Amino acid sequence: MNSPLFWFVPVASACALGFAAWFYRRMKAAPEGTPRMAEIAGHVRAGAMAYLQQQYKIVGVFFLILTGVFAWLAYGLGLQNTWVPFAFLTGGFFSGLAGFFGMKTATYASARVAHAASQSLDAGLRLAFRSGAVMGLVVVGLALLDISVWFVVLNRFVTDADPAHKLLVITTTMLTFGMGASLQALFARVGGGIFTKAADVGADLVGKVEAGIPEDDPRNPATIADNVGDNVGDVAGMGADLYESYVGSILATAALGAAAFAAAGDPDAAYKSVLAPMLVAAVGTILSIIGIFAVRVKSGASQRDLLNALGRGVNLSSVLIIAASYLILRALDLPNFTGIWGAIVVGLITGIVIGKATEYYTSQEFKPTQGIGEHARTGPATVIISGLGVGMMSTVVPVVAIVIGTTLAYGFAAGSWSFSPETISLGLYGIGIAAVGMLSTLGLTLATDAYGPIADNAGGNAEMAGLGPEVRRRTDALDSLGNTTAATGKGFAIGSAALTALALLASYVEELKIAMLHNEQNSFILRGGEVVDTALATLPQFMEYFQVNLMNPKVLLGVFIGSMMAFLFCGLTINAVGRAAGRMVEEVRRQFADKPGILNGTDTPDYARCVAISTAGAQREMLFPSVIAVTVPILVGVLYGVPGTFGLLGGGLSTGFVLAVFMANSGGAWDNAKKYIEEGHHGGKGSAAHKAAVIGDTVGDPFKDTAGPSLNILIKLMSMVSIVTAGVNVAFTIF
Amino acid sequence: MNSPLFWFVPVASACALGFAAWFYRRMKAAPEGTPRMAEIAGHVRAGAMAYLQQQYKIVGVFFLILTGVFAWLAYGLGLQNTWVPFAFLTGGFFSGLAGFFGMKTATYASARVAHAASQSLDAGLRLAFRSGAVMGLVVVGLALLDISVWFVVLNRFVTDADPAHKLLVITTTMLTFGMGASLQALFARVGGGIFTKAADVGADLVGKVEAGIPEDDPRNPATIADNVGDNVGDVAGMGADLYESYVGSILATAALGAAAFAAAGDPDAAYKSVLAPMLVAAVGTILSIIGIFAVRVKSGASQRDLLNALGRGVNLSSVLIIAASYLILRALDLPNFTGIWGAIVVGLITGIVIGKATEYYTSQEFKPTQGIGEHARTGPATVIISGLGVGMMSTVVPVVAIVIGTTLAYGFAAGSWSFSPETISLGLYGIGIAAVGMLSTLGLTLATDAYGPIADNAGGNAEMAGLGPEVRRRTDALDSLGNTTAATGKGFAIGSAALTALALLASYVEELKIAMLHNEQNSFILRGGEVVDTALATLPQFMEYFQVNLMNPKVLLGVFIGSMMAFLFCGLTINAVGRAAGRMVEEVRRQFADKPGILNGTDTPDYARCVAISTAGAQREMLFPSVIAVTVPILVGVLYGVPGTFGLLGGGLSTGFVLAVFMANSGGAWDNAKKYIEEGHHGGKGSAAHKAAVIGDTVGDPFKDTAGPSLNILIKLMSMVSIVTAGVNVAFTIF
Repeated sequence: MNSPLFWFVPVASACALGFAAWFYRRMKAAPEGTPRMAEIAGHVRAGAMAYLQQQYKIVGVFFLILTGVFAWLAYGLGLQNTWVPFAFLTGGFFSGLAGFFGMKTATYASARVAHAASQSLDAGLRLAFRSGAVMGLVVVGLALLDISVWFVVLNRFVTDADPAHKLLVITTTMLTFGMGASLQALFARVGGGIFTKAADVGADLVGKVEAGIPEDDPRNPATIADNVGDNVGDVAGMGADLYESYVGSILATAALGAAAFAAAGDPDAAYKSVLAPMLVAAVGTILSIIGIFAVRVKSGASQRDLLNALGRGVNLSSVLIIAASYLILRALDLPNFTGIWGAIVVGLITGIVIGKATEYYTSQEFKPTQGIGEHARTGPATVIISGLGVGMMSTVVPVVAIVIGTTLAYGFAAGSWSFSPETISLGLYGIGIAAVGMLSTLGLTLATDAYGPIADNAGGNAEMAGLGPEVRRRTDALDSLGNTTAATGKGFAIGSAALTALALLASYVEELKIAMLHNEQNSFILRGGEVVDTALATLPQFMEYFQVNLMNPKVLLGVFIGSMMAFLFCGLTINAVGRAAGRMVEEVRRQFADKPGILNGTDTPDYARCVAISTAGAQREMLFPSVIAVTVPILVGVLYGVPGTFGLLGGGLSTGFVLAVFMANSGGAWDNAKKYIEEGHHGGKGSAAHKAAVIGDTVGDPFKDTAGPSLNILIKLMSMVSIVTAGVNVAFTIF
Repeated sequence: MNSPLFWFVPVASACALGFAAWFYRRMKAAPEGTPRMAEIAGHVRAGAMAYLQQQYKIVGVFFLILTGVFAWLAYGLGLQNTWVPFAFLTGGFFSGLAGFFGMKTATYASARVAHAASQSLDAGLRLAFRSGAVMGLVVVGLALLDISVWFVVLNRFVTDADPAHKLLVITTTMLTFGMGASLQALFARVGGGIFTKAADVGADLVGKVEAGIPEDDPRNPATIADNVGDNVGDVAGMGADLYESYVGSILATAALGAAAFAAAGDPDAAYKSVLAPMLVAAVGTILSIIGIFAVRVKSGASQRDLLNALGRGVNLSSVLIIAASYLILRALDLPNFTGIWGAIVVGLITGIVIGKATEYYTSQEFKPTQGIGEHARTGPATVIISGLGVGMMSTVVPVVAIVIGTTLAYGFAAGSWSFSPETISLGLYGIGIAAVGMLSTLGLTLATDAYGPIADNAGGNAEMAGLGPEVRRRTDALDSLGNTTAATGKGFAIGSAALTALALLASYVEELKIAMLHNEQNSFILRGGEVVDTALATLPQFMEYFQVNLMNPKVLLGVFIGSMMAFLFCGLTINAVGRAAGRMVEEVRRQFADKPGILNGTDTPDYARCVAISTAGAQREMLFPSVIAVTVPILVGVLYGVPGTFGLLGGGLSTGFVLAVFMANSGGAWDNAKKYIEEGHHGGKGSAAHKAAVIGDTVGDPFKDTAGPSLNILIKLMSMVSIVTAGVNVAFTIF
């Protein structure tokens, strides 16, 4: 029960954090360019930090209230594990910390990247990418640290004679710190998404459309807010989101492993199966660091070289993780380790397929996006219709990939397609570890994601500081590359969220078991009269006992509510962007009217006011969707019990996933259809077709950057809430 | 087993068909107005009939192929009930016939209504509404006829010693003619929807936007096609759709009743429970006729009077059906008849709530649509964003209404909220009869629905024939009333489709039972070792045996595929409209270029070519979505068996319902936001805000008239396909 292999996890964490610190120092040491560049970067940094401070205040209040509730449930009512409030708090803390560090790095990097790009393209790329790597490594480093510490602490303090059961208690307890991470991520994604799109849409509507000034023009008062938004939405939000998927998938898999082998009466295998996802993540972290160093271009590299360089790093670490995870599993000597390894490989491939499909549907190099560009010739209505059509069609491949991937992962790990007590637990473990496989090289994937907004901000900095056209050309090349990686990154984030949520759904059953034992419900009676020992009950027996079948109206109604939740959540966030953008439009118009000097460059706009407006808008608007996301699962659990909760999670997961893919891809396709026209097709910049495409792009903004990514969190958070309140579901159901 | 009450059903059918014939004759006897009006109506009629002929050809081929497949399954492989191919054919035939009669009436009525409106507003209303009533009464009359004939025939030919089991065989066999109706409805909705929106969008894009001529201007070559489209999409399509819901809900409820009381060993109650939905429908038909006569306005009535007149008819028949169904159930002396009556009332109220919510979100008298109008001031992008937001938010009330309605219907009918073998069958019967309650006064509801396109066409006729402004003002009033009833009608169609699909899902289990018995699988063994007699098995036992629980990956993956299907189907139909509209735009441009005399009125456009283009487009584009809708349930059944099928149906139903509400309401809200501005707000007609709102309206067209309504059919058709191929699912599963 104490394999030395475990210590590889904290070591990987230390490596990740060490390299992150090193990259950070190197970045800070680079020159910031002209005083004007430093000044602009300072504005953006101050705005971002001010926003984050505001956000953490609200999140803090929310956390305090929920911690109080959990403490009351645990200590007052005795319904719950007493570690839950603490686990919840640390999860939220670390997730927030990861976002904070990532954003700090990104906001320090922008001017430095712009300056490096003024030297050479490859210098710019290297600095931007290494800055993005800080974010990637901080996320995985903190996640592995959190996991290591809790695993050691709980191993010491949980007292249970049965070693397999002790592991189950430890892993299901740790899982609840995913709830903290999830909630933090929700605020970051929703708040950040509203902030960034309110600024972006507001800046575009008045700046580009009304005043006719280009994007990132320093005369536009909302332009700093727009740049701040890229950081709070794409860097801090994305980081917290993937931190949560990463931690969630590892811990859910650990819990499923403990359950699978505990049921088989093999505590040794149970321990190994708990270690396996942690070790795969740890080795993936080391390989990510290697991959990061593999991303390099020669001086004078073209944009294609840039893309190839990133691809090389990702491919290298994917190939290495396939080999390394085989060796790890072999060294662990888990039963059926080749099958489990197969599941990991399936997870990796599923992630790649979803990424490629996203690229096909959203890149202007392929037919779907070009088709939208063509429809721009008949005006904005056909741009919108065709973009929605493309987004809807684009849901097919990701769903089929998830379905085939999940089927194969289950089959490989279980050694059978059947749903019998012997195979089901192993099969679900396979689905969990497939998610871990997909996320194993997150350090690197996230580096390429975070690279995008950094390059974008560098471009904004160069534009606002009035650097020469050659520098702008280079930062444009860096930015365009970032758009491609951002689209695939979004596909990857959604795919991994879906697999993680599936694993969480499976581990909800284990939480129910723990909750029943906690309530001293040590046995239950099935309909046939059979008496089942709770501790030894199989998953199908739990399903029979709780009547979680699709003809139970409670399950079906839960599914309906889950589907509705996805749409409601999107509607709320989209409307929030609309309202906040409206306030921004009014403010920019007011500034232009009050200070006519702004537009001819003789007066400076009040950037800070726009940042404050976006901040206030995001604060106000993010509260209601967040409250809904937390309370509805609790409410459904109380009203319709375990069957209703399962329905809610299943319906929310499937509809949320499909809706998220649709929104992200429609948005991405509109964005790039506009770029396609700007490249000179159908009349190029300034033509009627371009105007139509700009409208599509504006509609797509809240799709791809607010509502779509927020759904990733929703599907995970609802599972997390149900997991944490499993005790309530068991003890208290009205209908 | 032979209650004289049954004969009330054919009598009601005869009444409905008799009054339909009478209204039709009265309408035909009315004068058609000027020769120009008759000529225009002749064009529209010829176009509509030409389209329908084409559609029936393709549908015919499809039906022949499927009948062959069913015959092979039944006679060749012996997997299925031998009556299925015949039931399938008659269902398709009657559904098609209902659409045909409705459309014939509507196309004869348009000029006559325009002429009557030139006399007085109330004369116009009466004629338009009575013509719509032909459609409503034909649909319910043919449905009750089909049900009566089959019930008598099968009662005679099905030989089974056990009377309760005989009833189960009869009702489950009859249910399969819903598949024919469903398929016919699919083609009508999808084909009609593509036809009408290709013509509408095409006509608007060139006519309104490019050439600057008003809607329904006779110079626009696509204008006749646009009017034809209203008939094939809204009349024939809506009729076939609701025919299917009506028949499906009655027969599914009958099958659920037979199963519930057969299990309770009470053949007498089983017979009564089979009669109950038929009798409620029959009495509802008589009350609908009374309601139709109650719709009358005094000479010189205002538009508000018109709305009140329609409302009076609907309210009167709703109140009467509540009283009459109580008396019917009491006369039948069903066990727990007050509870079942409660379920009927719940169904009626659910329908009303959904209708009112639809009105709130889509009428310009309320805030959401006014808000979209306000966003029009900042351009088309914000119109689109806010319209999508409104549509998403509008899903909440209908889902909550369905959830509460279903919970109450279950609880009232079962006398308990629990999911035990004793209560579940009764509870599901309650859900089914709630759907019957909602649809009981369909004769009247459908009359108000069909009234819409008739009034619309009358307006078109008046415009094209150059009638005076006073007549146009009156037809506009009639048309505007039609828009309100059309929006509530759509909400009602979606709500009833959801409840019907729930009932179909429940009766799928009965089909499985029949299929198992047919395969001589007379018993099965549960996991606990219990041996269960198939004929006596309870629903929870079937669920356990087939492992239809939400932790079975097959179920979950089915749910994913179901959610994806809804989006895929919408994407396909939306893209189809885009392509077909593109061809229409090119044709209209070509005509304007070739014959410059068209625009100054010296040359006549070639209307027939535009009709032919829309027809060809609809034909080509409707095939693939239809094939997908039929084959995917079969494929999932073969690959993932009964659990996968349940998942598919559950996921498709919930996502499809929410998506359909979203699309219908976004589309309706955009339409009316445009009307709101045209009424003089935010600058009125011709302002920048109006231009932005027109773009929203154009985007909404395929939403509310093609993709949204087609989803109603998809969710029912997928259940129907699974019901008909239940034998295949039982006999043959790969994974």
